[in-house]
Amino acid sequence: VSRLNPEILAELISVLGQDHVARGASVLELHSHDESTHPPVLPDAVVFPGSTADVSAVAELANRHGIALTAFGAGTSLEGHTVPVHGGIVIDFARMNRVLQVHATDFQVTVQPGVLRLDLEKQLSGFGLFFPPDPGANASIGGMIANNAAGIRTVKYGATRDHVLALEVVLADGRIINTGSRSVKQSAGYDLTHLIVGSEGTLGLVTEATLLVYPVPEHFSTAIVSFPDVPHAAEAVYGIMGHGLDPAAVELVHQDHIAWMNEDEGADLPVAPSLMIEFTGPNEKAVGEAMTSALEICDQAGSTGSDRGLGREARNAMWRMRHSIRERVHRRFPGHRIISVDVAVPISRFPDLIAFSQDRAAARGLDYRVIGHAGDGNMHMNLNFAPDDAVARRNAETLNGELIDKALEMGGTSTGEHGIGIGKRAYLVAEHGAEAVAVMRGIKKTLDPNNILNPGKVLPDE
Amino acid sequence: VSRLNPEILAELISVLGQDHVARGASVLELHSHDESTHPPVLPDAVVFPGSTADVSAVAELANRHGIALTAFGAGTSLEGHTVPVHGGIVIDFARMNRVLQVHATDFQVTVQPGVLRLDLEKQLSGFGLFFPPDPGANASIGGMIANNAAGIRTVKYGATRDHVLALEVVLADGRIINTGSRSVKQSAGYDLTHLIVGSEGTLGLVTEATLLVYPVPEHFSTAIVSFPDVPHAAEAVYGIMGHGLDPAAVELVHQDHIAWMNEDEGADLPVAPSLMIEFTGPNEKAVGEAMTSALEICDQAGSTGSDRGLGREARNAMWRMRHSIRERVHRRFPGHRIISVDVAVPISRFPDLIAFSQDRAAARGLDYRVIGHAGDGNMHMNLNFAPDDAVARRNAETLNGELIDKALEMGGTSTGEHGIGIGKRAYLVAEHGAEAVAVMRGIKKTLDPNNILNPGKVLPDE
Repeated sequence: VSRLNPEILAELISVLGQDHVARGASVLELHSHDESTHPPVLPDAVVFPGSTADVSAVAELANRHGIALTAFGAGTSLEGHTVPVHGGIVIDFARMNRVLQVHATDFQVTVQPGVLRLDLEKQLSGFGLFFPPDPGANASIGGMIANNAAGIRTVKYGATRDHVLALEVVLADGRIINTGSRSVKQSAGYDLTHLIVGSEGTLGLVTEATLLVYPVPEHFSTAIVSFPDVPHAAEAVYGIMGHGLDPAAVELVHQDHIAWMNEDEGADLPVAPSLMIEFTGPNEKAVGEAMTSALEICDQAGSTGSDRGLGREARNAMWRMRHSIRERVHRRFPGHRIISVDVAVPISRFPDLIAFSQDRAAARGLDYRVIGHAGDGNMHMNLNFAPDDAVARRNAETLNGELIDKALEMGGTSTGEHGIGIGKRAYLVAEHGAEAVAVMRGIKKTLDPNNILNPGKVLPDE
Repeated sequence: VSRLNPEILAELISVLGQDHVARGASVLELHSHDESTHPPVLPDAVVFPGSTADVSAVAELANRHGIALTAFGAGTSLEGHTVPVHGGIVIDFARMNRVLQVHATDFQVTVQPGVLRLDLEKQLSGFGLFFPPDPGANASIGGMIANNAAGIRTVKYGATRDHVLALEVVLADGRIINTGSRSVKQSAGYDLTHLIVGSEGTLGLVTEATLLVYPVPEHFSTAIVSFPDVPHAAEAVYGIMGHGLDPAAVELVHQDHIAWMNEDEGADLPVAPSLMIEFTGPNEKAVGEAMTSALEICDQAGSTGSDRGLGREARNAMWRMRHSIRERVHRRFPGHRIISVDVAVPISRFPDLIAFSQDRAAARGLDYRVIGHAGDGNMHMNLNFAPDDAVARRNAETLNGELIDKALEMGGTSTGEHGIGIGKRAYLVAEHGAEAVAVMRGIKKTLDPNNILNPGKVLPDE
């Protein structure tokens, strides 16, 4: 790939207008990193397109000159996705942040990629609707699509992938394609929509998306349940899933995080390995009955206490606390960097994975804390270390690698929801095999022959 | 593409063994057609592989000699998918019909592609599990994957696409790849799994699939509800979906089909446009409450009667009757051919689509009957005609085309669940645009450069 020389820069400015091409030091710095530990790299310029035509023009230019073009939404990715490792142009979708149309009577919404999750939530709530995928961070919808983001509600509603009906995509050479349709059932030709979802900006740039949304459930029943240890909690999770109870969330939280929540937020939760369980639906009795069944299962699995009487405020506070775990690690370890483990396994292996993870962390003299989207078999750990502590960093990286190897051995994946980015490329062949990765490479070459779209991501170097 | 000459045939036999290569007239005839009206074409040979290695060897041979290779499961497709329009080899997966492993504690099953839906259902029931996609026909699982089959339970559980976690796929040149993993959450690299699902045997041959299955719901509540006319029924459907009640089935059935069911099966259903509604779940009270809410909505929409007291036998009989509609058309019109309309639209447009369809049919002096997976906005009509009645055939084809044009105009799709096959290729550009179809063609060329895999399907001729 080439760098942006003055002639190309002049051309870029003539295409987009001076106001929408930035080269200031602070803008370049802001677009040099995401929230991961991957080293920052400065882009040559940051552009702020206002329309699909702008995006198309930028792609055409970048492709013609062989300049790297890396998409940027909210910068909340955790594996280096937005780091422009080959410099070039970062394309920031902040100006393309409109909700274009709420198809309320179809339970669909058409958005631009730059809209932020919480802004979408706010606009949809006026229609009694919501978009379920909830990664915690206030990500952009374009970033969530690029990354197939998931989160706490995935156990009931699925990941971002399951909510994308149709896309407008700008290809590497500036061509614009439309994929999918507004029908919820689709069998017409190759599924380009789901090829683009999760491709991390390496196959095309999403400029418009039609998403499936849902009526806000009128009723909820939320409980927090304590267990003597994590294996007992994991057994309860298995029972709840096995009964087909269809919970809206089943989150496992380490006792230290519970203690921190109590300290930081004045909460009064029993300090024990805990499950946060929620059922939602349109019928109050049905939701309550489902929770009764779930708590019976927890009881049989040895739970030591539960609080099912959470009102709306207490419940919202609990989920805010759950979402702030990463932030809380930052607060407790000021200046620390965090590697976020994101392995996922078939649910029957989840207890073993947790036991293994705790053992390995202990064997290395580390005290990292397991949390997880337990209903999905998706385990996280925040591995934090001081930026200058090379030993701790190596320990964290080694542990992350060991956990990935273990998850793959269990038939699972190196990444349940954070994506490959820079960090997991080393495991792609181990996960899918060399032949499947060769097919991915073939598809990349077909769609982006000059390798300008987010080069250095997803696929391992050849 | 080339035809199978004696030298290549000899090579094929030496690879698979004499017993697994068939050239008899009846075998060739059986593999010359599916259940559609597309003209049959005889293959040069039919092979019955017993293993992935066999499939790989056949593909390698076919690719080397440039011979068409068309996959065959149960032959129940409705758009000509299995018709070997360029002759060559049909690869029948009947011998690869084993359930390889039930991962009961993970709610997953690994199967060979030749296993039939009802055989899988039987084997899973011993574990208290079931595979939701139910197209009615006793299709092979490989065919359902190739076609992204759906059916009556899709409104709750999704289509086949939503149940495929991992695949083993033989590529055109014989290479074997593995896609996905046994984790229910996946964000590792390009989604090859869902590129293969729905690609109708044109990108690769599925030789093994790991599917998501569910606990058999312990409780159900099933009702049949009568309406004065179809628009009132459609309004009720919209209300049920809008309340987020999560029904397991919402089927619209034309009054004539109800009358035929009564006559043929000795049933005693009110002859009126009807909705067949079912809720399922692990909690009896919750299921009953949901049905109560649904029937209140039907009431408000003007329903004229309902029977919610269906026991297990009556309920099973009702669904068997629903599934036999196509068969019943065959019985009433002996020897007739049937074109199966399969358009789908955003749900708010479903009433308009139905009104338009009835008007157009009436304007042509036809008396075709609307049925549909109403909760998904997916409408079917069985357009039947005597094989030698060219006028009726033309009328049916024209009506089908008009309904597709209308569905596309409404933001919908030419095919909700039957796939493109031969019959819908003419609409692919209208649905997705020339640029998107060009991308599909690029992917096809990357994966199958010699165009040996099911040539003449999905993509329009260049």
